[in-house]
Amino acid sequence: MIKVGLLGCGTVGGGVVQLLRANASYIEARVGAPIEIVRVLVRDPNKERVAELDRGRLTTDAAQVIDDASLDVVVEVMGGVEPARGYLNRAIESGKQIVTANKMLLASHGGDLLDRARKRGVDLAFEGAVGGGIPVIRVLRDSLASDRIESLSGIINGTSNYVLTRMRQDGLSFDAAVKEAQAKGYAEADPTLDVGGGDAAHKLAVLSMLAFGAHLDGVAISTEGIDKVEPIDHEFADRFGFVVKQLAIAKLKGEGPSAPLELRVHPALVAKDLPLANISGVLNAVAIEGHALGPCLLSGRGAGDMPTAVSVVADLVDVAIAKKSGVSGNMTRAIRLGERKLSPMADVSTRYYVRFSVFDRPGVLAKMTGALGDRGVSIEQLVQTGRGSAEVPVDVVMLTHDAKESAMRGAVDTIATSDFIAKPPRVIRVHT
Amino acid sequence: MIKVGLLGCGTVGGGVVQLLRANASYIEARVGAPIEIVRVLVRDPNKERVAELDRGRLTTDAAQVIDDASLDVVVEVMGGVEPARGYLNRAIESGKQIVTANKMLLASHGGDLLDRARKRGVDLAFEGAVGGGIPVIRVLRDSLASDRIESLSGIINGTSNYVLTRMRQDGLSFDAAVKEAQAKGYAEADPTLDVGGGDAAHKLAVLSMLAFGAHLDGVAISTEGIDKVEPIDHEFADRFGFVVKQLAIAKLKGEGPSAPLELRVHPALVAKDLPLANISGVLNAVAIEGHALGPCLLSGRGAGDMPTAVSVVADLVDVAIAKKSGVSGNMTRAIRLGERKLSPMADVSTRYYVRFSVFDRPGVLAKMTGALGDRGVSIEQLVQTGRGSAEVPVDVVMLTHDAKESAMRGAVDTIATSDFIAKPPRVIRVHT
Repeated sequence: MIKVGLLGCGTVGGGVVQLLRANASYIEARVGAPIEIVRVLVRDPNKERVAELDRGRLTTDAAQVIDDASLDVVVEVMGGVEPARGYLNRAIESGKQIVTANKMLLASHGGDLLDRARKRGVDLAFEGAVGGGIPVIRVLRDSLASDRIESLSGIINGTSNYVLTRMRQDGLSFDAAVKEAQAKGYAEADPTLDVGGGDAAHKLAVLSMLAFGAHLDGVAISTEGIDKVEPIDHEFADRFGFVVKQLAIAKLKGEGPSAPLELRVHPALVAKDLPLANISGVLNAVAIEGHALGPCLLSGRGAGDMPTAVSVVADLVDVAIAKKSGVSGNMTRAIRLGERKLSPMADVSTRYYVRFSVFDRPGVLAKMTGALGDRGVSIEQLVQTGRGSAEVPVDVVMLTHDAKESAMRGAVDTIATSDFIAKPPRVIRVHT
Repeated sequence: MIKVGLLGCGTVGGGVVQLLRANASYIEARVGAPIEIVRVLVRDPNKERVAELDRGRLTTDAAQVIDDASLDVVVEVMGGVEPARGYLNRAIESGKQIVTANKMLLASHGGDLLDRARKRGVDLAFEGAVGGGIPVIRVLRDSLASDRIESLSGIINGTSNYVLTRMRQDGLSFDAAVKEAQAKGYAEADPTLDVGGGDAAHKLAVLSMLAFGAHLDGVAISTEGIDKVEPIDHEFADRFGFVVKQLAIAKLKGEGPSAPLELRVHPALVAKDLPLANISGVLNAVAIEGHALGPCLLSGRGAGDMPTAVSVVADLVDVAIAKKSGVSGNMTRAIRLGERKLSPMADVSTRYYVRFSVFDRPGVLAKMTGALGDRGVSIEQLVQTGRGSAEVPVDVVMLTHDAKESAMRGAVDTIATSDFIAKPPRVIRVHT
């Protein structure tokens, strides 16, 4: 029997208990032994729990889980950095296999945890940390073992995608869409971590660690939220043939172990015929570009308790098979993380969507295009909606050809200080 | 060292050799031993090969591969049912681990091969058989180990998807699009297996075997090709908000081990906002609906030598890890195939697109809608293009509400024999 200790028993933990019960015979055949949850750390043992859980197995004392020498695997579904980190360090030290779904912990200490696991010869699996039930971690780790990943880009925050989808499809304001997401349980009372891009940045760090073999603990990823995207931006994007999506992007800039990595989270214009453009509502997706594989897209319910529980159980089955076979540690042994520099945002090269709100005076367009031209930014399309006046501002929207971020920022900053500008320009990168 | 024998060394085999070489250090760390190709069955040892292959390892005698007791794994990338089947049976019998990318063999004898592998305690991996580099087999086998699959639908023939994409986007005729696909190397000289749906049916059988634990060797899957789709059907589909795609569909009709399975391959109207509608050109995709997981989509290059080689190498790494750890056979042990009845096509219930070519006489519409109404088929939308006459036929296109295939067929057959019908009606199912 594979004995499991569970740290946390909220909705994901409850889902894990249910799935293990419902699929017991298949899992036993696959592992060669039953998997049994024998100890569960909870905050309040008197709270109503899933029916399948024997109350005698609950404890409020973490030591009874992480220091119990009879346990084979510790599954952590409590979330947050501390005390989860301390618990997992102790569990690794005592030779237990680890399954975790904790993206925040992995983004800040994933490299360190993998190092500890490798040295101690234990497995550390974390499919549940990114993309809910989408098996993206295992694809990066196993399936692409023989390929070199060149880039990945993903819609990996369901809340942001839901908000942008509602804004685009039904013309809701950002605030109204967030309120609705909260009412439906898709957004937290404080939605900052989701709509501000922080959650996506955590997940991007976890994905990039595996995809590029990079030690990224606590690295500062350039992150912009979706809170400044307005309904009018969706309309213009649509007119140009794009959809506004919140993307997390990682690109290897060159080849070899010293090639720098470009990491960024921000709203982006995605061409309507790209698969990512059609990932709507709370769905998540990760597009991977492999050297030999070419493009590959995985999508599905990125959040939600049951999809995440499916991933946690799949991990649990993996580490249980290895444990039963006496080959624990192989999973972490192959993951060698090296240092990689981050490529600065100023070096990003892409197309840009820029919306200026201008007072329509003679010569204004010439000044704007001149300022862009001076920095080598050339314009592919330009749209002015109606005619403004010297008092009533009008939207002038441009789509540029490929330009360097530094040049683009310089030109826009120059234009922004002009007296014909009514409010701060809106710059959104185009995904290519 | 894990010693591998390769059966066949065409472009996929050559890709496998290259990838093993290029990723040797990662693979050795992951497996705990190097993987070495020591014997390769070829037809002509004097043919130009990939540079990495030592000519002394080539043989034209299959026995030198499958009967060599020192080999750990046999990788079969020769294709076709015989002699591949006989070779793999012998290799299994002698206790070798098997990796194959042979969809035709698996569709006709996959259940039997899995049975043999299970009894002999060896692994049998076949990621390369479906979807090129898309890791759909491993997702069904591993990641969804703890979930119940309810349905899957896929675009799993790149040639058909390319042809339909070119017809839709550029108005090419079927014949012109096939010719272009041949010129580009996307279609064989005889494209029948691809555009007729046979290849997709093979792959659907392999996917369904795993997804539903069903013994489907040589089962007759209802299959329609794309050769009767005309440019005008793409135009009408577009007008109704759909895209015509060649789909392979599997649905479990009910729950439990005796629930029947609905399997079908045919062109279908896919709503534009569904992810499958946006899988264009030679891309493949498989949409999986899991009970706990919800919807999940995997897409990527479905064909091509390098993507398939990536999958074969990933399988090879898996079976090598198990072999090195002395736990070979676990992969096949968990796969228990049972008999499942196929649900008859007459019982399919879906929406339909029907295009009639009619001579426009008084009362014709009433007769057509009457014949449909008599069978309980109700019409959601109806479009007539222009006005025909008693001599010049006009297209009347209908989109029905959900109807039973038998009722639909009965009504259309009745209408087809009417004297106002100019040519056989075109019926295309709507994917829902």
